[in-house]
Amino acid sequence: MTEVNTEASAQEAQALAEATASAMWARDRTAQGLEMRILNVRPGYSRVTMQVRSDMVNGHHICHGGMIFTLADTAFAYACNSHNLNTVASACNIDFLAPARENETLEAEAIERARAGRTGVYDVTVRTSIGKTVALFRGKSYRIQGEVIAGLEQADPVSTT
Amino acid sequence: MTEVNTEASAQEAQALAEATASAMWARDRTAQGLEMRILNVRPGYSRVTMQVRSDMVNGHHICHGGMIFTLADTAFAYACNSHNLNTVASACNIDFLAPARENETLEAEAIERARAGRTGVYDVTVRTSIGKTVALFRGKSYRIQGEVIAGLEQADPVSTT
Amino acid sequence: MTEVNTEASAQEAQALAEATASAMWARDRTAQGLEMRILNVRPGYSRVTMQVRSDMVNGHHICHGGMIFTLADTAFAYACNSHNLNTVASACNIDFLAPARENETLEAEAIERARAGRTGVYDVTVRTSIGKTVALFRGKSYRIQGEVIAGLEQADPVSTT
Amino acid sequence: MTEVNTEASAQEAQALAEATASAMWARDRTAQGLEMRILNVRPGYSRVTMQVRSDMVNGHHICHGGMIFTLADTAFAYACNSHNLNTVASACNIDFLAPARENETLEAEAIERARAGRTGVYDVTVRTSIGKTVALFRGKSYRIQGEVIAGLEQADPVSTT
Repeated sequence: MTEVNTEASAQEAQALAEATASAMWARDRTAQGLEMRILNVRPGYSRVTMQVRSDMVNGHHICHGGMIFTLADTAFAYACNSHNLNTVASACNIDFLAPARENETLEAEAIERARAGRTGVYDVTVRTSIGKTVALFRGKSYRIQGEVIAGLEQADPVSTT
Repeated sequence: MTEVNTEASAQEAQALAEATASAMWARDRTAQGLEMRILNVRPGYSRVTMQVRSDMVNGHHICHGGMIFTLADTAFAYACNSHNLNTVASACNIDFLAPARENETLEAEAIERARAGRTGVYDVTVRTSIGKTVALFRGKSYRIQGEVIAGLEQADPVSTT
Repeated sequence: MTEVNTEASAQEAQALAEATASAMWARDRTAQGLEMRILNVRPGYSRVTMQVRSDMVNGHHICHGGMIFTLADTAFAYACNSHNLNTVASACNIDFLAPARENETLEAEAIERARAGRTGVYDVTVRTSIGKTVALFRGKSYRIQGEVIAGLEQADPVSTT
Repeated sequence: MTEVNTEASAQEAQALAEATASAMWARDRTAQGLEMRILNVRPGYSRVTMQVRSDMVNGHHICHGGMIFTLADTAFAYACNSHNLNTVASACNIDFLAPARENETLEAEAIERARAGRTGVYDVTVRTSIGKTVALFRGKSYRIQGEVIAGLEQADPVSTT
């Protein structure tokens, strides 16, 4: 493959990642409801932020672990679907390293560690805006039938109900 | 220890678990916001339900994995704090077995598998109302300083803001 | 299905589990080398023991976590292959709860928690002979091509090398 | 802190990591028995290799997952004890990505991802000599009482038995 073709291919892969993210976002009511922001998507990569709202704290007055997980899982989803192949989480694990407080903005960065056959492994790091690591997440992905963007069109009648 | 004392102790442990759950619930804005219901709490045990709302779906039109995790993590929290010792999640893993759909009611049942020193291990099973297993969750707990109910009193000025 | 047929089927499933275990054991040089014993195999279930030898300790003078994992992983393998469909570990996690000492005999009990499509989830508990829980293991299985017993015959020329 | 002191401190940390590894190795009968080689140790880091022997295969004629885990867990142990504070594995998870064959030499590289208070998180990647990733491992460490090298002296009568 010539260098020009490789660049073209890289550009196409990037365009596909961005189109896929837009299609997913349009129907991702959880991420919308939690006011996440998709900062950056590349093939196998994403960065997503979320501010800890007053309705995201738990019985210990710190950000609910489920909300930290949901942010990490969302970054994972945008990274593992960036190739436009419908992909879901098969299993995840998370280590909570430090608490996050109300009003802090958290950023999750997802990186593809491996992808072969139907499965992949993604590492997500959740940090505060001053760089403190709040959680380390690892997700195993499983590719199901269909494409994200084809799926969007099919899904329209449902999502507009 | 006589049988009578054991019963008394069991009753006290149950009363403590219920009081702790009430105290946690009062400040657990995440569980409240997601309209969870704490069905049952016993020492080292809890059952919590949540209906999958339209704002809990993801870009694949199924319940967001983060919402399933949050339900499981909440059941874990009520089980591991049931002894009235402040306890947080140190690490969790979750296997997603089947998708959950909008409007389905999910139930998470948390069981204490081990507890020694500052740490414990809890297994949570998430099922639909017809008994289909949606996810298997395992959480590792870590006891921090303080008691849940003592913490509640301290926390009142904040939680009533 | 009549009761008689169900019983027959249960007997066949048990016979298949035992035949599969024998076939696996014949070529499982790791389990043989570590002098494990397969105590009991049923469909989706197994119990395996291992004595902590002097060459199974680590730099802290306790049983190497890798050896405890290997015992649990072996019980997992016999449980998830008990249906005679070639199945491998896709991911595992283990919580170490208490140390094991040289000369102690450990028993791993594996139970099938879920099985659907190509994947399954198995819980393994590792205990000492006095019932102390040493580790909790959870394994995710993935079915690959072929059958265990068919595989045995194919494999003979290799395993006898 | 001046640059000179930082360098001195880095040299001391490196010397400590190497001394700790030597002390651990002297009593690590599992790693010795499996003929592992500690290639490189730095503070929070290690590289360890192992050749897949004929007694490390399982019932599917591939390297037993327990042996791959044991290699990864060993690299984890040398990385997390490199600060000469006695540290054990609290929990680990592993994703198996590709099989390893008899006679292949596997290398595990352990990297410290986080360390605070008594706990740390380490990522270990296991690769074949041609760079194929066989497994991704994540270990959570827990610091117990004592120092590795102080422990060595105490332990001498046992380890020389």
